[in-house]
Amino acid sequence: MSCRLIYMFSEGHDAFSGDLTAMKNTLGGKGAGLAEMIHAGMPVPQGFTITTEACTKYYEDGRELGEDIKKDIFACISELEKITGKHFGDKNDPLLVSVRSGARQSMPGMMDTILNLGLNDVSAEGLALKTGNPRFAYDCYRRFVQMFSDVVMMVPKSLFEEEIDKLKEKKKVKNDTELTADDMKELVGIFKKIYEENEGREFPQDPKEQLTEAVKAVFRSWDNERANVYRRMNEIPYEWGTAVNVQAMVFGNSGENSGTGVAFTRNPATGEKKLMGEYLINAQGEDVVAGVRTPSPISHLKDQMPEVYDEFIGLADRLEKYYKDMQDMEFTIEDGKLYMLQTRNGKRTAQAALKIACDLVSEGMITEREAVLRVEPKQLDTLLHPQFDAEALKQSTPIGKGLAASPGSACGRIVFTAEEAESKVKEKDWKKVVLVRLETSPEDIIGMQVSQGILTVRGGMTSHAAVVARGMGTCCVCGCGNDNDVAIDYAVKTLVLNGKTYKEGDWISLDGSTGNIYDGQIALSDSMENPDFKRFMSWADSARRLGVFTNADNPADLQNAVDMGAEGVGLCRTEHMFFAGDRIKAVREMICSRTKEEREKALAKVEPFQEADFTAMYRIIGTRPLTIRFLDPPLHEFLPTEPKKIEELAKEMGISAEELTHIVQSLHEVNPMMGHRGCRLCITYPEIAVMQTNAIIKAAIAVSKETGEIITPFIMIPLTCEVKEFRFVKNIVVSTADELIKNAGIDMKYKVGTMIEIPRAALTAGAIAKEADFFSFGTNDLTQMTFGFSRDDAAKFLGSYYDTKILEQDPFQHLDQTGVGRLVAMSCKEGRADNPELELGICGEHGGDPSSVEFFNKVGLDYVSCSPYRVPIARLAAAQAAIKEEG
Amino acid sequence: MSCRLIYMFSEGHDAFSGDLTAMKNTLGGKGAGLAEMIHAGMPVPQGFTITTEACTKYYEDGRELGEDIKKDIFACISELEKITGKHFGDKNDPLLVSVRSGARQSMPGMMDTILNLGLNDVSAEGLALKTGNPRFAYDCYRRFVQMFSDVVMMVPKSLFEEEIDKLKEKKKVKNDTELTADDMKELVGIFKKIYEENEGREFPQDPKEQLTEAVKAVFRSWDNERANVYRRMNEIPYEWGTAVNVQAMVFGNSGENSGTGVAFTRNPATGEKKLMGEYLINAQGEDVVAGVRTPSPISHLKDQMPEVYDEFIGLADRLEKYYKDMQDMEFTIEDGKLYMLQTRNGKRTAQAALKIACDLVSEGMITEREAVLRVEPKQLDTLLHPQFDAEALKQSTPIGKGLAASPGSACGRIVFTAEEAESKVKEKDWKKVVLVRLETSPEDIIGMQVSQGILTVRGGMTSHAAVVARGMGTCCVCGCGNDNDVAIDYAVKTLVLNGKTYKEGDWISLDGSTGNIYDGQIALSDSMENPDFKRFMSWADSARRLGVFTNADNPADLQNAVDMGAEGVGLCRTEHMFFAGDRIKAVREMICSRTKEEREKALAKVEPFQEADFTAMYRIIGTRPLTIRFLDPPLHEFLPTEPKKIEELAKEMGISAEELTHIVQSLHEVNPMMGHRGCRLCITYPEIAVMQTNAIIKAAIAVSKETGEIITPFIMIPLTCEVKEFRFVKNIVVSTADELIKNAGIDMKYKVGTMIEIPRAALTAGAIAKEADFFSFGTNDLTQMTFGFSRDDAAKFLGSYYDTKILEQDPFQHLDQTGVGRLVAMSCKEGRADNPELELGICGEHGGDPSSVEFFNKVGLDYVSCSPYRVPIARLAAAQAAIKEEG
Repeated sequence: MSCRLIYMFSEGHDAFSGDLTAMKNTLGGKGAGLAEMIHAGMPVPQGFTITTEACTKYYEDGRELGEDIKKDIFACISELEKITGKHFGDKNDPLLVSVRSGARQSMPGMMDTILNLGLNDVSAEGLALKTGNPRFAYDCYRRFVQMFSDVVMMVPKSLFEEEIDKLKEKKKVKNDTELTADDMKELVGIFKKIYEENEGREFPQDPKEQLTEAVKAVFRSWDNERANVYRRMNEIPYEWGTAVNVQAMVFGNSGENSGTGVAFTRNPATGEKKLMGEYLINAQGEDVVAGVRTPSPISHLKDQMPEVYDEFIGLADRLEKYYKDMQDMEFTIEDGKLYMLQTRNGKRTAQAALKIACDLVSEGMITEREAVLRVEPKQLDTLLHPQFDAEALKQSTPIGKGLAASPGSACGRIVFTAEEAESKVKEKDWKKVVLVRLETSPEDIIGMQVSQGILTVRGGMTSHAAVVARGMGTCCVCGCGNDNDVAIDYAVKTLVLNGKTYKEGDWISLDGSTGNIYDGQIALSDSMENPDFKRFMSWADSARRLGVFTNADNPADLQNAVDMGAEGVGLCRTEHMFFAGDRIKAVREMICSRTKEEREKALAKVEPFQEADFTAMYRIIGTRPLTIRFLDPPLHEFLPTEPKKIEELAKEMGISAEELTHIVQSLHEVNPMMGHRGCRLCITYPEIAVMQTNAIIKAAIAVSKETGEIITPFIMIPLTCEVKEFRFVKNIVVSTADELIKNAGIDMKYKVGTMIEIPRAALTAGAIAKEADFFSFGTNDLTQMTFGFSRDDAAKFLGSYYDTKILEQDPFQHLDQTGVGRLVAMSCKEGRADNPELELGICGEHGGDPSSVEFFNKVGLDYVSCSPYRVPIARLAAAQAAIKEEG
Repeated sequence: MSCRLIYMFSEGHDAFSGDLTAMKNTLGGKGAGLAEMIHAGMPVPQGFTITTEACTKYYEDGRELGEDIKKDIFACISELEKITGKHFGDKNDPLLVSVRSGARQSMPGMMDTILNLGLNDVSAEGLALKTGNPRFAYDCYRRFVQMFSDVVMMVPKSLFEEEIDKLKEKKKVKNDTELTADDMKELVGIFKKIYEENEGREFPQDPKEQLTEAVKAVFRSWDNERANVYRRMNEIPYEWGTAVNVQAMVFGNSGENSGTGVAFTRNPATGEKKLMGEYLINAQGEDVVAGVRTPSPISHLKDQMPEVYDEFIGLADRLEKYYKDMQDMEFTIEDGKLYMLQTRNGKRTAQAALKIACDLVSEGMITEREAVLRVEPKQLDTLLHPQFDAEALKQSTPIGKGLAASPGSACGRIVFTAEEAESKVKEKDWKKVVLVRLETSPEDIIGMQVSQGILTVRGGMTSHAAVVARGMGTCCVCGCGNDNDVAIDYAVKTLVLNGKTYKEGDWISLDGSTGNIYDGQIALSDSMENPDFKRFMSWADSARRLGVFTNADNPADLQNAVDMGAEGVGLCRTEHMFFAGDRIKAVREMICSRTKEEREKALAKVEPFQEADFTAMYRIIGTRPLTIRFLDPPLHEFLPTEPKKIEELAKEMGISAEELTHIVQSLHEVNPMMGHRGCRLCITYPEIAVMQTNAIIKAAIAVSKETGEIITPFIMIPLTCEVKEFRFVKNIVVSTADELIKNAGIDMKYKVGTMIEIPRAALTAGAIAKEADFFSFGTNDLTQMTFGFSRDDAAKFLGSYYDTKILEQDPFQHLDQTGVGRLVAMSCKEGRADNPELELGICGEHGGDPSSVEFFNKVGLDYVSCSPYRVPIARLAAAQAAIKEEG
């Protein structure tokens, strides 16, 4: 039998269609696995799967099961009764079922399960009769009442546990196993009373009622908080819903010839090719998880039940060959008979993922292209940053949690200013510092560089601290003020976090991959040189079409990125060089100039610095593209706002504090993100464009002459919103560059392109493309303006957006393909139509995000550019995108 | 002869094509008029027109005339020599020409003119011989040297004037006319020397060189500053360019039987049907303009030269009948022979425009639909606001200039705070005040209402002051700090404007239609009740397809708008009601609430105020649409930021200053425009939506019961960027409203729609349309985010954008049809595709801008909504758009 919303997976039924993807979508991963195992003739308890579509319908119907679905469920139960010869609620041989969730992608431990369903006062007696084991039967019954009450009806678990403790005390026993059949029966009575008191009605005796309530509970658990958080972390859409698997119970707890266990075909921590697992005799699955007794390693089963062991080994081997991947299996032995309850591709560490992928290729099981799909790009992160020692981490409890802004782990002594960070790291007893700030600003850049980690109270995943830290590969936890009670007092140098006060010099540890904050020092394990990494990445590189560039603002970052495999620079932010040493002085002089002449004089001081920086970068990158963006931030970012600092600076600059205050005030903006910045600066002060062109072209000429290989500079104009704006700045670049090149007597070409980061630029991309050599999508700003979300401020309401499922993902981390993506796709299409030579890239944060990279591959970009430490991730994501696209 | 870039308009040539629009585009208004007059057989000096395309080519070629154009020009000169029998530079009968600009739309006085071209040492003598009048010949020559030097070579005019003065002193004469032929000859010598000293070369004797330089000068004058400003004011595109008309000179200064003059077929000030004009005997055109002698009224010509007069009357009549509009004509009489030099549709006042349009219909000359096209919509403004008395204004010199933010004129005594405005107007000696502020904020609303006018230092055309003032119909000049040296000291209550200090109580006058600021009092003329207005507007209303709604936030504005012809309310901003009286207290209590319960308690206090406001508005508007927008601004706008005010408020609210400071700080946003506002407030605090729905529906039910006519409320959700967001808020509205309606036992429908003001909303309009009953384009915010221009900050760089022609218009005043318009058009198309019933409107500032209204008509909106005083403008603009569309 079959019906749209339910599929029987028993032999002779139609759950197995052969189309594995479609099966997973409809039946969920677990349901599909069960159908496949049965199809392959493996021992699996009979049952049926209620589809993910039924889950969607449940939510559409206001969290209710429709009569048609119920009818179908009961029809499936009748069929199951026929197959098993057992009957729901039977007094002689009752049918008991497990009810388990099963989403398309496994979400281990996130949703609910109900075992032993079908027990009531009559069938419990029947189970006792049938098994000749009343203690087992009533143990099952009391477990069921407890589980049903807790999971389905949300009666607090503790009420039941207290009663078990009371009974054990009364009986003067220590372990549950010492309780007798009568004790269990007594517990059933007590438990049913608890249910009645809490629910205002008797515990349901009708197994059909139990079943429909259990199915609803599993559907409901799709929407529980931990499932929502897990989905957000793993980019699993809420719309998918979960399937429900209803399966005849087999009992691992029916005696010493029974048992239950889990096993992996290869080691999920190291990838070693060796069956690994554990089991418990006379137990149900939950006992293994609960850790009441210590399980035995799977190898012991060979001695205890050699035939079962051999059968299991054979099945495990078949499953791995069938799925061509490491399997994570659950099994139960009932009276010496082996049943497979589940198989799925096992979760694994990054190290294991690489080793398994490489080994499977060596073993001839998969092709290199298939191997490329077997490693989650994001996992590579952990290979590239120092991590806490896993054991040491287990001993530690977080004292707070922020946003996991830049991966890796850090441990150091607290400092509260960038200056302190700089000076303290030079002291013997300090060396390692963690910079703790309300927020960071461009002038903190050097202090950030010398810190082990950065912790901020405000700001999101794309705040200054987060962006800069990711660029440096420094661990960073951001915005810890969103969910914690935090106060920083700079004056007395204290951080109060959730009630505890930390002083300057106190040790603190940060996990930039989880956002966790820890008290004291946690040991770090060294970032490893993985032997499989190079082999694996070479396959990825040969599979991808997209170029992978990096965002790098200085020679150190650039060298790092090149080591990580970057093929060019998609974004060099010139202003990030403005803060070091004497430069900031000249920059401020430029800002405070009253005339063009004064400004040109100040710019003349900045130019040699810029030229030297570009020269150093060209020496590293050679003739590969180095895309240098003109000055982007509003000028007020380079000036202080606090009266005291203004006074100091005024003295330094030799102007009055009043005058400087006036300048600072006149530069103030209500919405700086949409203010006087980007190419708008070159429209009002064309001399800035002249200076920057000079610095770039001179550096390129010098290095070209040094090496004899002629560089092609890429000059990028930010924040364009209108083609005439681009043309105006381009004209300055062209006239300045052409003269330098002519005077140098060199045959140098150069390209002038623009960021596409303002919606209007995307909407007029055709016109701009006629003038521009390349586009680089600035998806950070484009996301801000397309959504109207200020990334500095959106954290305040994004929480509510996730809670209400209006948004499931942070659009600053994962490209919004519907809205922002539409603008990107339009620009690509219309830009290329008007200029077939147009080069297309992206340099926003999304350049290192796998799902976004897949989108960029699809719309036909030439390259993605991301922070150095994300380069390997982008390379792999680009490869996977290309392979998936080819199908 | 004819060529692409030049057309001869002499008889037998092809300038006249019959397609008047094409002629105007190519030949400019003046060139087309000359061709038409010649075609009609009128006496016009022969010549040719260099087209607007040649002007474009001039700019494309780096401000040079190509050899091909020059060749064509000289060919035309040869042709002209044939026709006139005169020759360029001839020693017996020289050909002299005038070189005049002529754009598609007339831009009187904005560009350059050169007369008497062709004179040199030889031809001056020839002219003297031919006319027997050496004084006349050398007067022409010295005028030409002076004009050529000034206009073409930019040699300062004053150098020449000083020499005339010197000579007059030497000769002891008072008037130029007393100078003799020899004096004139002497002046020519002196003038040529001045030229030589300034230009480093002799004055050009070759008439062809004179001509090419003069043509270039006229083309160049298209880009002079006053032309650029004029174009920006009148929305004339820079790309159009100007044509140049080269015409054989006729001389009104060749004796007592000669003369020159200008005339209108009807009175341009009143519209009265009576020829009006003036002339000078023995003069050239420039003398009439310069006002050296007082001209005679045209009626005197009847006595002085009866035949010429009759001929002229006949021609004027023919021209008016030909153009079917009031004509502005220039003529010259040379030795008793009349020549028409120019005819064009005359500029006129609003009052005259209405009268002429109505009279022409009464006279059967034009249809009502044609009449509708004869009045500039913007002109209606002057009919609806008080204006300075024209005579009094002539006596006054502006002391500064800001943006013409809200039309009308105002005169009052200076106050510096809204509170002072409120209290001072109650005093006998004050009554009339002008509110002078750095910028205004929502809490100033009442002070603004009682003021005659508002002057702000900061902010643009869509700043708070500008928007609110236009809504009230109050005169406002904004952002006077952009181009003036301004300082306000609130502490000592002074305004220092361009060096002069004004104290509280000093009189000041503002012209909101020009942006001019005047010292002291200027008399106002009463805003008149125009008898033609109603008749004219009824024609407009019957021609238009677009509905015209109003933006109104309170009963007074609404009544005003209804009187102006508004057919509904497109935008009622609920928050504008939040500041009056006790409301702000309850609103602040709501903002400072720590729990949902506290917030609900505070909202319960706000609800009755809102309900009362809506009730009052429903009583005025009845069953016509009243679109009420949910709370939009970020909450921090309702709290003070200055420490002292915080302290006061904290005391008032009974909380500590620390706590309130903390709240204010936690609400602070880096980019409030893209922060926690609009429907985002309803996502985090759904109880706000509940309260506002309650207030709206209860008010609608009450008024429906009162009148027996059932109202359909329109509820508008602001700042939507995603359909799920809209659905979330809509669900709250629906469940709240349905219960109220059910309980009231009334058969009330209601509509829930959204603003489309975030680019992403436009990009996902199809999905949103499936849920929404209507869209209202919020083109202010949509412009901000599409351009990435903060309207509070953009004034700082928009000046440079105009100077460089990157932008020609303020996109906040005139819809950017390319970018923002593309989003609007996309939304309309995709929204209607997914919901054919979708109602479409616009409620941004552009709803009252004629060119924008034309666009909205084209893309198929159902209505535009604008501030009350713009309703008549929008009605007329909508009518013109509909008529133009039908062709």
